[in-house]
Amino acid sequence: MLSGKNIIGFETSSEGTVGIQAINPATGEPLGPLFFKATHSELEKAVIKASEAFKTYRNFSGNKKAEFLEAIATEIEALGDTLLERYVAESGLPTGRAQGERGRTLSQLRLFAGYIKEGSWVNAIIDTPQPDRQPLPKPDIRAMERPLGPVGVFGASNFPLAFSVAGGDTVSALAAGCPVVYKAHPSHLGTSELVGTAIIEAAKKTGMPDGVFSLIIDDGVEIGQALVKHPQIKAIGFTGSYRGGKAIFDTAALRPEPIPVYAEMGSINPVFILPKTLKEKGEALTKAYLGSVTMGVGQFCTNPGLMVVQKDDTFIENLKKETPKASGGIMLNRGIQAAYEKGIEQFSLGAEILSTGTQPEGFTAAKPMIFSTDYAGFTENEHLKEEVFGPSSLVVNCQSKEEILKLANELSGHLTASVFGTEEELTAYADLLQILEQKVGRLIINAFPTGVEVTHAMVHGGPFPATTNSRSTSVGTLAIHRFTRPVCFQDMPDSLLPDELKTANPLNIWRKVDGEIRK
Amino acid sequence: MLSGKNIIGFETSSEGTVGIQAINPATGEPLGPLFFKATHSELEKAVIKASEAFKTYRNFSGNKKAEFLEAIATEIEALGDTLLERYVAESGLPTGRAQGERGRTLSQLRLFAGYIKEGSWVNAIIDTPQPDRQPLPKPDIRAMERPLGPVGVFGASNFPLAFSVAGGDTVSALAAGCPVVYKAHPSHLGTSELVGTAIIEAAKKTGMPDGVFSLIIDDGVEIGQALVKHPQIKAIGFTGSYRGGKAIFDTAALRPEPIPVYAEMGSINPVFILPKTLKEKGEALTKAYLGSVTMGVGQFCTNPGLMVVQKDDTFIENLKKETPKASGGIMLNRGIQAAYEKGIEQFSLGAEILSTGTQPEGFTAAKPMIFSTDYAGFTENEHLKEEVFGPSSLVVNCQSKEEILKLANELSGHLTASVFGTEEELTAYADLLQILEQKVGRLIINAFPTGVEVTHAMVHGGPFPATTNSRSTSVGTLAIHRFTRPVCFQDMPDSLLPDELKTANPLNIWRKVDGEIRK
Repeated sequence: MLSGKNIIGFETSSEGTVGIQAINPATGEPLGPLFFKATHSELEKAVIKASEAFKTYRNFSGNKKAEFLEAIATEIEALGDTLLERYVAESGLPTGRAQGERGRTLSQLRLFAGYIKEGSWVNAIIDTPQPDRQPLPKPDIRAMERPLGPVGVFGASNFPLAFSVAGGDTVSALAAGCPVVYKAHPSHLGTSELVGTAIIEAAKKTGMPDGVFSLIIDDGVEIGQALVKHPQIKAIGFTGSYRGGKAIFDTAALRPEPIPVYAEMGSINPVFILPKTLKEKGEALTKAYLGSVTMGVGQFCTNPGLMVVQKDDTFIENLKKETPKASGGIMLNRGIQAAYEKGIEQFSLGAEILSTGTQPEGFTAAKPMIFSTDYAGFTENEHLKEEVFGPSSLVVNCQSKEEILKLANELSGHLTASVFGTEEELTAYADLLQILEQKVGRLIINAFPTGVEVTHAMVHGGPFPATTNSRSTSVGTLAIHRFTRPVCFQDMPDSLLPDELKTANPLNIWRKVDGEIRK
Repeated sequence: MLSGKNIIGFETSSEGTVGIQAINPATGEPLGPLFFKATHSELEKAVIKASEAFKTYRNFSGNKKAEFLEAIATEIEALGDTLLERYVAESGLPTGRAQGERGRTLSQLRLFAGYIKEGSWVNAIIDTPQPDRQPLPKPDIRAMERPLGPVGVFGASNFPLAFSVAGGDTVSALAAGCPVVYKAHPSHLGTSELVGTAIIEAAKKTGMPDGVFSLIIDDGVEIGQALVKHPQIKAIGFTGSYRGGKAIFDTAALRPEPIPVYAEMGSINPVFILPKTLKEKGEALTKAYLGSVTMGVGQFCTNPGLMVVQKDDTFIENLKKETPKASGGIMLNRGIQAAYEKGIEQFSLGAEILSTGTQPEGFTAAKPMIFSTDYAGFTENEHLKEEVFGPSSLVVNCQSKEEILKLANELSGHLTASVFGTEEELTAYADLLQILEQKVGRLIINAFPTGVEVTHAMVHGGPFPATTNSRSTSVGTLAIHRFTRPVCFQDMPDSLLPDELKTANPLNIWRKVDGEIRK
């Protein structure tokens, strides 16, 4: 059923001579077929097609683009067990996770479809004219957000569906009116081809232009870097490592025409448990913490890599008792597993190994590790502030509120921070909340960071180095604004204005007219 | 009255030993006093003060920040003729322009004050919880825009008030909740000190923290570059040349922590007059064109540097007849005048000199120049596509609509494009409008680009190289969003939420609640 070919708009293509082998991380065994690494000429075709497609796709109505997104969801559903089986074989993740992630992918597509059908997202603003104003008449000025152009997307290894081919970056770019050239993650090429083919089927069925979506295959950085450099590419979405994201950011900054790079590079997501709550709920929180650390074998951007507490012996004893019951699992690929092993080795040099979970069987199996140190140890060792992607976490035992605040002040940018406490405690630690708010995209009270809602208010972003652009989110409907820019029209005849800006408001959207929000 | 000192929060400072001389461009004579170039230690103090000020200023209510902005307007007004006289002496611009620009500066401050008093600009979004959702409860998630941190601002030479010390970048950053460290333009240091002192007076009177505003003096790039590199600076606003803006962009991209750079670098603002309209209104349009080209001695970002027409002998004859009546004027400084002379020399090599205006008296006087070429000449000569800052413009005589469309397609990013035509003509040239919309921030029908309204719908921005960030505007209320990022709060107790997100909506602002816009 799989061809191993690149998808260049409505065609498939295998010009190249380099084969890429998919591997089952649970067994180490190869999975067929061989995938063809894209050539530069294939990339060029994909981008040129995207550029051509943009000429019409940019003007498609919200309803028409929504039909496309909904059709993508339908086509993905129609893949049925074929998709789930390939997902499990390639990722080492269990079927339940595959099902859950498929559900999130489908609801994400449908959420964006509804969002653009409703249509108010374009931020239509109308300043009506004043022909009699002295000394000069005031013109009619109307603004709205318009799509940027073709977008390059690099999918994540750790969400083979929800942050991959038809994931958050792709869906928000398509919703905005931008064609997508997608660089498949080499860790799940079969899953990628299945979903890519579903997108093409949906595009054909709903009358989208050839080139609205392409999928290119690369196992290294050569073709991906060329994608970032291509003059017709107007923005980049990326989810992955700091190294990968920063390299793409640097490449884009050196383009003759710089473009925005939205790289979500993960973080250690500090968790603070305030003393009274730790005392009262320590046992339950220990279990929940370990659950969050080991969820998805720790392979989440929101994995809680840092736990900050005021030293509490019972909590430490609980952790020592509970960690061995926590099981590791199969990591996504050999590279990630090797990086995890290297990361925990480095942590072992700077922190105490507090407790260790169970190592399961499997080619890329990894076990949970909990480290501990004190405030001085954390402050002095830069390595301990770096993300280790996998089921490990570091407990920092502080001596005082003062140390906790100092530690918070020293943190760099993260996707999330969590604080556990009663309302009374939280009020007493309002200064901690103030510091953390400046470090993260999402401030969480009384919950661990894993589990990201796909909604309107979600911010899955944060200051550098969590992302390369703190002014955006890669999850939730706000993500659409990454791929647009405001354009204003001065004294444009009504008949030539986009529907969103026509005086009669034919789309019945919310607009700001002379400073007032109204329909 | 002037001290020549740097303004470091509530103190003035003159640690340095380098003096900078202000010059009257009309006479070439020095204007007292000598200004002290800032030292690195003064810059450091200014940024550290800004960083300290941010801790409180970021949480000030819209009303409180609005009081500050309104007080700045009051203090600037109170400077009276002293300000106007210094403005005229330093800029070579006439008193009427000084008055007009002061008016725009004051109304800009008051517009932003009103905008943040109303408060809906923060884009408050609330997704209510679903405690009974299966398999997991849905948390309460609330998002709003929050200020980025201290902002570095580089003012423009050509707007000594409206885009300088208390100009669009400063006011939008202060409105957002960001302290400003302002690098004064060496071309109007006295005007800058007067306005900077007014801001400090306003800050003291309205209870703002020391450090909410500082003004540092530099005649080169040393201190400005250090400002861009400073780790506590979280965004940059800049208005000026391509060379200056791009250098700042490149410096910021190389920071360990990259930050957004909003550099507005000007453009040639192509104007298209469609054939029928050119025939019918050619005479009036010729005069209006020359008026726009020579307004402010051509020293506007929106100066129409390119006029595209289908060859029309009457229009050319009119231009030859009218240009000599157009007068030049005193340019802002010797450097700008020299660059203008070099620019028109280079144009003379690639295009025909169609007509020349009158050269007035004065140290930095310059005269209007109109060049002409055909489509092939324009396409083949890259120099003709570059901005010449001053009262010159290039007419491109095309042979056909096809040539016009090809020319439009070859354009890079600009702040504006203008098209003159009847509704019928515009409809026939809808393809031209589609192309131009993708090249600019503002598409203007039947008007020349000079004259930028400060309103809600204004977009004074555009694709690179007009700016380094097409997703923003430097004029109008949308400018505030350059200095904010979204932050979301998950399950935060109501008492600890910002007022904008509290359930009772105490500020009575527009919010998006479960996807619906409401108060």
